[in-house]
Amino acid sequence: MNLARPLVLLDPHPRTNAMIFHRADRERLDAMADVITVEAGAVPDDAVEACLPRVTAILGQTALPGARLARAPHLRAVLNVEGNYVPNVDYATCFARGIRVACAAPAFARPVAEYALALALDLARGITQADRLFRLGQERYGWRGNLAAETLFGAPVGLVGFGTIARALLPLLRPCHCTVRAYDPWLPPTLLHEHGVMPATLTEVLERSRMVFVLAAPTAHNRHLIGAPELACMAPGAGLVLVSRAGVVDYAALHTALREGRIKAAIDVFPAEPPAADDPLRTCTAAVLSSHRAGGLDSALKTIGEMAVDDLDLVLRGLPPVRMQAAQPETVGLQRSPPGLR
Amino acid sequence: MNLARPLVLLDPHPRTNAMIFHRADRERLDAMADVITVEAGAVPDDAVEACLPRVTAILGQTALPGARLARAPHLRAVLNVEGNYVPNVDYATCFARGIRVACAAPAFARPVAEYALALALDLARGITQADRLFRLGQERYGWRGNLAAETLFGAPVGLVGFGTIARALLPLLRPCHCTVRAYDPWLPPTLLHEHGVMPATLTEVLERSRMVFVLAAPTAHNRHLIGAPELACMAPGAGLVLVSRAGVVDYAALHTALREGRIKAAIDVFPAEPPAADDPLRTCTAAVLSSHRAGGLDSALKTIGEMAVDDLDLVLRGLPPVRMQAAQPETVGLQRSPPGLR
Amino acid sequence: MNLARPLVLLDPHPRTNAMIFHRADRERLDAMADVITVEAGAVPDDAVEACLPRVTAILGQTALPGARLARAPHLRAVLNVEGNYVPNVDYATCFARGIRVACAAPAFARPVAEYALALALDLARGITQADRLFRLGQERYGWRGNLAAETLFGAPVGLVGFGTIARALLPLLRPCHCTVRAYDPWLPPTLLHEHGVMPATLTEVLERSRMVFVLAAPTAHNRHLIGAPELACMAPGAGLVLVSRAGVVDYAALHTALREGRIKAAIDVFPAEPPAADDPLRTCTAAVLSSHRAGGLDSALKTIGEMAVDDLDLVLRGLPPVRMQAAQPETVGLQRSPPGLR
Amino acid sequence: MNLARPLVLLDPHPRTNAMIFHRADRERLDAMADVITVEAGAVPDDAVEACLPRVTAILGQTALPGARLARAPHLRAVLNVEGNYVPNVDYATCFARGIRVACAAPAFARPVAEYALALALDLARGITQADRLFRLGQERYGWRGNLAAETLFGAPVGLVGFGTIARALLPLLRPCHCTVRAYDPWLPPTLLHEHGVMPATLTEVLERSRMVFVLAAPTAHNRHLIGAPELACMAPGAGLVLVSRAGVVDYAALHTALREGRIKAAIDVFPAEPPAADDPLRTCTAAVLSSHRAGGLDSALKTIGEMAVDDLDLVLRGLPPVRMQAAQPETVGLQRSPPGLR
Repeated sequence: MNLARPLVLLDPHPRTNAMIFHRADRERLDAMADVITVEAGAVPDDAVEACLPRVTAILGQTALPGARLARAPHLRAVLNVEGNYVPNVDYATCFARGIRVACAAPAFARPVAEYALALALDLARGITQADRLFRLGQERYGWRGNLAAETLFGAPVGLVGFGTIARALLPLLRPCHCTVRAYDPWLPPTLLHEHGVMPATLTEVLERSRMVFVLAAPTAHNRHLIGAPELACMAPGAGLVLVSRAGVVDYAALHTALREGRIKAAIDVFPAEPPAADDPLRTCTAAVLSSHRAGGLDSALKTIGEMAVDDLDLVLRGLPPVRMQAAQPETVGLQRSPPGLR
Repeated sequence: MNLARPLVLLDPHPRTNAMIFHRADRERLDAMADVITVEAGAVPDDAVEACLPRVTAILGQTALPGARLARAPHLRAVLNVEGNYVPNVDYATCFARGIRVACAAPAFARPVAEYALALALDLARGITQADRLFRLGQERYGWRGNLAAETLFGAPVGLVGFGTIARALLPLLRPCHCTVRAYDPWLPPTLLHEHGVMPATLTEVLERSRMVFVLAAPTAHNRHLIGAPELACMAPGAGLVLVSRAGVVDYAALHTALREGRIKAAIDVFPAEPPAADDPLRTCTAAVLSSHRAGGLDSALKTIGEMAVDDLDLVLRGLPPVRMQAAQPETVGLQRSPPGLR
Repeated sequence: MNLARPLVLLDPHPRTNAMIFHRADRERLDAMADVITVEAGAVPDDAVEACLPRVTAILGQTALPGARLARAPHLRAVLNVEGNYVPNVDYATCFARGIRVACAAPAFARPVAEYALALALDLARGITQADRLFRLGQERYGWRGNLAAETLFGAPVGLVGFGTIARALLPLLRPCHCTVRAYDPWLPPTLLHEHGVMPATLTEVLERSRMVFVLAAPTAHNRHLIGAPELACMAPGAGLVLVSRAGVVDYAALHTALREGRIKAAIDVFPAEPPAADDPLRTCTAAVLSSHRAGGLDSALKTIGEMAVDDLDLVLRGLPPVRMQAAQPETVGLQRSPPGLR
Repeated sequence: MNLARPLVLLDPHPRTNAMIFHRADRERLDAMADVITVEAGAVPDDAVEACLPRVTAILGQTALPGARLARAPHLRAVLNVEGNYVPNVDYATCFARGIRVACAAPAFARPVAEYALALALDLARGITQADRLFRLGQERYGWRGNLAAETLFGAPVGLVGFGTIARALLPLLRPCHCTVRAYDPWLPPTLLHEHGVMPATLTEVLERSRMVFVLAAPTAHNRHLIGAPELACMAPGAGLVLVSRAGVVDYAALHTALREGRIKAAIDVFPAEPPAADDPLRTCTAAVLSSHRAGGLDSALKTIGEMAVDDLDLVLRGLPPVRMQAAQPETVGLQRSPPGLR
C-alpha cells in the first residue's frame, strides 16, 4: 500500500464488483487509488475500521454513524452505488464536513424511462393482452382487435413526481406531442414550465390524463399517495404505469379498480416481492405484470461503476462530482425506498 | 341534386362511412358536393354507372377500367380510402388525363410507427414475456429477470424500407440516440443521409442491427425478401419487428429461426389471417404475436375521412391535394399488398 | 455516342456546370448517359433540336414549347436546376405524357431557412444595429444596450406561406419553443396542425407575432399581399423577415412603416436588384439589408447537381424521382418568380 | 415586523428591485417574509447588521465575512442575484453550516445561448458584413455575395467550456446536425458523450471546428487560455464567438489574427468596457462587435427575481432550492468573473 496514494473503500454490497464494473473502469479505479474491497458480501467491520484513518472515499453503502466518521478524518466522498439513500450514514456530519454524498440514481433514469414508455405503449395499444389472446386462439383482427386501443399521439399524460426519471421520460414522449401534466410538491411551477410541462395538482393529473406515470420515490410523506379516492379520479379506461416503488400506491385499492375494469395498469413493483402465489393481481387481466425489471439492466449496473469512478476522479482532483446525484440535506432523511435491485 | 354542384361518388367499401368519418367531416363533404353513397357494402354497379357522366371525384376503390373512365369525362380525383392500391383502376389513363389518384397510407403512418416502437421495446425489454412468466409464477426479479433484456438507447437499429412508416418511426427513435441504417432500393443514399440515416445493403441492416423493422410494402419484386439466408445474417438474440405485410418474409424460415432461439420477433401480419389453429407460431415463446393491429385504430380510420375531405376540397378549388399519398405512375402497378384492415 | 445509352441534354444556363456539380456528381452523370452540353451560356437551339429525337432527359430550363416536345418522343424528365418554374415549357403536355417535371427548390430550403433564422435573431437581439453603433462609438453596455432587444424564446412567430422553406425553418424554431402561426391559403388547417403549427388568417399572423417570416413564393394571386393595411396590423416593434421574393410586399408601404419606426425588417430581396443608389431603404436604420444572399451558397448550388443526378438515376431505372420538387399541374402555371440567383 | 415570520434581506445592488422583479414575484416575496431593502444602492452596513440576528435569507451579494455570518445564527440561504460569485462571502462557513448559496446564472443561459447562436449565424452567413457593404453601395448579389459564406448545417463546431450556457446552446444547434466537440477540463468525457458531444482537447476543438464558442467562465486557472498559439490552430476562415468573459482570451493575439484575415470573430466582451476610443478592434471588419449584450435582456433580469423567490419559497418550506445554481465548495473560490451586467 502506497501511503502517498488515496485509499478507497469499495463496498458495493449487495451488489458485487463484477456487477457494477466494466474491467476498464475497475482498472481506472485501481490506477487512481489503493482499493480495499472483498469479492463477495459486505466488507467486514474490522476491515472497514482498519481503513478509516486513511480512507479518502467510500464507494458503497457502508454504515457510517457519527463515531465512524469521526475516525475517518480524510474522508471526502461517500458514493453510494444504489439508486437511493438508506439511513445508515450520519448525513448531517457529512454535510458539515463537506464530505460529498451522492448516489447512483441517474444510472437508472434512461432504462426506467424507456421501460415506463414500453409499459405505457403496451397499455395504450394492448400489446401483451393481444399476445395472450392470440395464444388462446381468441385474437381479433384489424380494428376489431383495437376496440380498446388508443394512441399516445396527442394524448394527455400525467407524471406523479418530476425527478430524474420523469426528466428522462419527457424526451421519449415529446415526439408523440403529448400534453404533459406533472404533480410534484417539491418543485415550483416555473421549473415545470421550463421543461414544457404543465404544473398540476394530483387530482388534475389523475382526472385529465389517459396515461399516468407514477414516478415518485417514497418518502416520509407520500405513503399511499394514490389510494381509492385518487384512483376513482382517473378517467375510465385510462392507464397507470407504476415503476417507482410500491409504497406510494394502495395496492388493495388498485386491485379493486383493475378488477372492476375501471382502469388499466402496468405494475413493476409490489409491496412484497414476489407477491404471494395466490395474490389476485397475478391473474388480473387488466394489468401488465413485471417483476421489478425497469432499471436493473446489465448496462445500467455497469454505468454505476463508471459514474462512481468518474466522480471519484473529480473528487480526487479537487473538483465537484457531476455524474452521480448529490444528496440534499433537506430531503436525504425523508427517503423511504426499500433497498432496490439486488 | 344540384346540377351546378360537384358530384362525388363515396364508395369506401370494405370500410363504411361510419368507420372513416367523424360527423363534422361528413358534413363538410355534404356541404361541398352532392354525394352518392350506400350505407353498407359497395356501391352497386348501376349506381356507379349512373353517376359517371357527372362525377367529379370518387372516394374509394371503385373499379375503374378504361371503359368506365371514358364515361366519366369530368372525373378529377380518385381518392382511395385504403392504405395501398389495388389493380382495379386504369391508372395510366388517370395519369394521362390528370385525374388525381391518391391513397390513405399517411393516415396509418403514426399509428403503425407507434406500434412498431411498442413491439421493439417489448422485444428489447422483454415485456410480454415477463408478464407471461409472472402469470406462471416463474418471474425473476431485478437483474435476474433481465438477463436477455437490452435497451434501445444507443442501439444500432435497421429499417427495411424507408417510406411513410419509416419516416414516422424515425422521430420516435431519435430520443434513444439509435444508430439507424436503412435499406431501400428505390431511394438514393443522399435522401437517407438527409434524414440522418445510414444507407445500407439489406445484409448490412440485418447483420449490424439489434432491432430490425420490416416496413417495406410488398411489390412485384420483393416477395420473400427476408428468407433463411437473410435471417441467418441477423446477430444472435436480435429482434425482428414485422408490421408491413407478410409477403416480404419467408415465414417457414422465420419460424425456424425463432424455434432455434437465434432471434426474437414481433409479428403483426401473417400469410393467412388468422393462421391455422395448429400453426406452430401460435405457441412460439420467442415471438410477440399480434393480429394485424398496427394501423387500424379508430382514430386512424377517422383520419382517412378527414384527409379525403381535405384533399377533395383542394381539388375542387383547383389546387393540388396535400394530405393523401399521390400514386406514382412508375410504381403504382408494382404494389402487391393484399387488402388491409377490414 | 452510344445509341443504346440514354441521352441527356444538360443546359443549366444561367447557371454553369461548374457551379452546380461536384466532380463526382458530374462523373456519375457521364456514367449513366451520353451528355450534350456547353460550358458557357445556353445550349444553342440547333444543338437542342439535334438531340430531341433521342433525348431521354433535360437538365435545365430549355424552352420546350409543344412543338419541341412533339419532336422528343423519348423524353421522360425535365429537371429544372432553378428553384422555381418559368413559363417556357408546355407543362400540360409534359403531364399528359408522363414526363417528369421537377425543380431544385429543395436545395435551397435549409440555407434559406438558416438565413431567415439568422435575420430574425438579428432583428430580435439587435446584432447588426449594435455593431453599427459600436463602430460609431455609440454602443451602450449590458441592459442599457438591450432596451429594444427581445428573445425568440417563447415568442409568437408567424409564417406567411407554409411550403418548403417554412418546413425547413420550423425545426430551427422548435428549440425556442415559439408559438407558430401560419397562413397558407393552399393548405388545409389539419396539415398545419400536423406540423405543430396554428393555422391562421394573414391578419392574425401579422397581429399576433413578434416576428413574421414572409416565405410565400409569388403567384398570379399574391402580388402586394402585404401592403400598408397589413403592415399596419403588425404589433409595434415587431420584425418582418423577407426572404422569398419582393413581389409579395409593397415596398413603398414597407419603407414608410420602417421610417416611422413602427416595425423592424430584414430584407433580402428587392423589387429591382440592386435598388437604385438613392433608394431610401439603403440608409434605413430600422432594416437589416441583404443582397439576395439567402439561398445561393456554394453548397446549395452543388446540391442542385447532386439532386438532379440522383433523380435522373431513378428515372432511368424506372422509378419516381424523390429529391427535386415535382411540378403540380394545378399550380405550375401560377408561379411568378422572377429568375433567381444568377 | 412580525417576529414569527422569516426575515429576508433584499440587497440586489448593483441591480435594483425594479430591475429584477415582476410585481407578482415581489408580492410573493412580501407574502412569505418580512423584507428589509432599499430602493437604490446597496443596503447600508448598519441596516445589514441590524437584521443579522433574525435574518433567514439574503437575496443579493451582501458582504458576509465570517464575523457577520457568526452574527446571523438563523441564516439559511444566500441567493446571489448575479450570474457569478464574488469573494465577499465566507463560503466555507456557509457550507459548514448548511447555508444554501446559489447564484442566478441559469437566468442567463437561454438568452446568452440564443445570442451566441445569432452571432455564429452572423459570422457564418455574413449578415452584419453584408448589411455594411449594402450601406456602402458595395453589395454583391446571390452567390457573388456569398463567396465567404458557409452554413452551420452539418458543420463541425466547438465549445470551450461545457457549463450552463453550452447546455442551453446545444439544443439550438441540434437541428443543424452539427458535429459538436467540447473541451472542459472539469468534466469527465462520459458526461459529454451523454449530451451527444465529443470530448476533445482544446487544440482539437480549435483545429477541427468551423465555429468555436468560447463559453468558459474565467477562473484562477484559465487566464488567456486562448492566446496566439491557440488562435493559430484555428482553421482558415473559421469563426470565434466570444460571449463569456474577456479574461479567457488574449485580445492582442485575437486582434492580430483578425487583422491578418486568418479568422472571423464575434465579440461581446472586452478586457475594458468600453474599449478605448482608439482601440483598433473598433474598426476591425473581420469582427462583429457587441457591447456585452448577450445576457442582459429585461426578461432575463426578471427571471432572476422569479428564481430567487421560487427558491426562497422552497428553502422556507424546508426543501432544497432547484432553480438557481448552487455554489460548489470546490470551485466557488476559483471564479474570476468581473462583475457583470450593471
